[in-house]
Amino acid sequence: VFEVKWEAAQAEKNGFAHFMLKEIHEQPRALRDTLKGRLAGDDSAVVLKELELDDGKLRSLRKIFITACGTAYHAGLVGKYVIEQLARVPVEVDIASEFRYRRPLIDEDTLVIVISQSGETADTLAALREARRLGAPVLAVTNVVDSSIAREADHVLYTWAGPEIAVASTKAYTTQLVAMYLIALHLATVRGTITLEERRAIIKELKQLDSRAELILSNGHLIRDLARIYGRAEDVFFIGRGLDHAVALEGSLKLKEISYIHAEAYAAGELKHGTLALIEKGVPVVALATQKNLFEKTLSNIKEVKARDATVIALAMEGQKELEKVADHVLYIPPTNPVLAPVLAVIPLQLLAYQMAVVRGCDVDQPRNLAKSVTVE
Amino acid sequence: VFEVKWEAAQAEKNGFAHFMLKEIHEQPRALRDTLKGRLAGDDSAVVLKELELDDGKLRSLRKIFITACGTAYHAGLVGKYVIEQLARVPVEVDIASEFRYRRPLIDEDTLVIVISQSGETADTLAALREARRLGAPVLAVTNVVDSSIAREADHVLYTWAGPEIAVASTKAYTTQLVAMYLIALHLATVRGTITLEERRAIIKELKQLDSRAELILSNGHLIRDLARIYGRAEDVFFIGRGLDHAVALEGSLKLKEISYIHAEAYAAGELKHGTLALIEKGVPVVALATQKNLFEKTLSNIKEVKARDATVIALAMEGQKELEKVADHVLYIPPTNPVLAPVLAVIPLQLLAYQMAVVRGCDVDQPRNLAKSVTVE
Repeated sequence: VFEVKWEAAQAEKNGFAHFMLKEIHEQPRALRDTLKGRLAGDDSAVVLKELELDDGKLRSLRKIFITACGTAYHAGLVGKYVIEQLARVPVEVDIASEFRYRRPLIDEDTLVIVISQSGETADTLAALREARRLGAPVLAVTNVVDSSIAREADHVLYTWAGPEIAVASTKAYTTQLVAMYLIALHLATVRGTITLEERRAIIKELKQLDSRAELILSNGHLIRDLARIYGRAEDVFFIGRGLDHAVALEGSLKLKEISYIHAEAYAAGELKHGTLALIEKGVPVVALATQKNLFEKTLSNIKEVKARDATVIALAMEGQKELEKVADHVLYIPPTNPVLAPVLAVIPLQLLAYQMAVVRGCDVDQPRNLAKSVTVE
Repeated sequence: VFEVKWEAAQAEKNGFAHFMLKEIHEQPRALRDTLKGRLAGDDSAVVLKELELDDGKLRSLRKIFITACGTAYHAGLVGKYVIEQLARVPVEVDIASEFRYRRPLIDEDTLVIVISQSGETADTLAALREARRLGAPVLAVTNVVDSSIAREADHVLYTWAGPEIAVASTKAYTTQLVAMYLIALHLATVRGTITLEERRAIIKELKQLDSRAELILSNGHLIRDLARIYGRAEDVFFIGRGLDHAVALEGSLKLKEISYIHAEAYAAGELKHGTLALIEKGVPVVALATQKNLFEKTLSNIKEVKARDATVIALAMEGQKELEKVADHVLYIPPTNPVLAPVLAVIPLQLLAYQMAVVRGCDVDQPRNLAKSVTVE
């Protein structure tokens, strides 16, 4: 009986050693599916008719709240940045288990966005109900059709990642990011804060994320080699600024979830205000430097940790050769619009977490103490 | 020559082994001084004439931004909570090194509050200038008269902590919290979101913080005993909800700054979304449970980490006997209004960081890699 089950599971894994690795590799397909039917034929706009959001309502929005837990919360952090930059609406992101107890300042001119892969996350569902009680319309971003959150929200934008089995979320996260881009572009168009050319430029890049993700995945062996060197580390730090900080938080969470390494992420500019004390010889620091306008500042933070003899694994867009003089290793992602970089930057971090967990002999798909969908508070 | 210098330094330390310990013990006096002259004789209101803030302007405020670095940023997190709860104005807190680069959504109906002990923090000063460039009035909370930040801000509220020498900030933090309470109460009064009785109740408690802090300090030996047991830990986690989460972040920063233990703080409700994987037998978890309305939820999070055999040091207001059945150790603070609890709750955490650093033989007043005032970016 066990053998049969095992074979069935193997078949489902499509030749991959773990569901997590399979799901990491499904991201190009998941990104494509989540974009499908949501872009105008001439790339001039996003088409979100399914949301049934009234344009007048979107124009009068005074504030957006995004609330979620864990990885979905990290997608919300990217959402805040992107919606504020493109649509110029203030966005507040809050952990669902905090949001629901703090009497949030919400009214009918506030849109609340909840994000949950399973659509059953208990705290997120409770936050949704609290938002509706306070009179705000709720837009859910979820991966499961007809889930509790999908049913109770006023509007639903589905991510089409397909079933996610591994406890550590990967393809759900990158498709949640795509959902954030679609919402930001739609809002920006309706509110007139983006030109046609800017829209076209971002949409053109959005459509190429899948092939760029493929390219990163085809170089997965580089990450496996790094994991073999650093897999036994006890502490790993992730640093970045702006969008890179949001991705650093997600990279750090992946690593701690499945490898049990004490990973922690910081806004790179905050290092000097305390955490630098923890940086000593040989400690691996993963430094994200994908954002052109923050590159020089991040480079100077990398030099700070190098001056304390840390080992730096830098992650940047192709072309940032300067990093090679400073960092111990540099991982490159294909060039894209900086606003879209999180989708590509997270993939090497997912692979690094996965490969380090494998090196350590951890049960990747079923990490200790964790459940896939947290349906209790 | 060395001996003379050493004796001079000893004298300045007033008999304490380190400046940090001296400054921790100066908090009752610092709290008193920061309140002095700022409360109406009949405890009915706070008096902040020094700010020259126009009441009409305060009533029309649509948003407050708080920006700061390190410990001052943590004071800002408490400020957000307190101002939103008492004055019902939306507050966004942002790390200064992030704020200045992200085109924040600010206008003349936004008040920007910057917090800096030294008044010279480079990123905070740059954030102040960016806010003024965008047309927002800036209120500075600082400890140094005539510092750059004090000079360039439109309004200044001084904390009267006295000179802070130790790199790890303690009395500056608690007086920054008092500044947050004063601002929140003033705003709430002007905007009519608080009754006279509520104001009186909070002000009455504010005035007793000094004697309550004394009481905690007089029990410092309890913390020293704990430090002797757990001082050799490699990782320590801090958890809490709401205001306790903000204090957990500060407690965690203190510990990592001076003891080089990898400490990390979480919103207690987020544990299940990943970090619970790091909790294993014997890992010390400092659990803050001072907030009555969140007590049951936090208690259930404490049970979660106990179920993974963590060692729990709980911190709560006197009377929460239930904790003794679950936690390994319980530290009590004297009862106060829950909104003021951070001032008292942080003191045992400051002492714990100090005593653990001493056990480990660390250079408490001059931790590696860190400077007192970060005047470079």
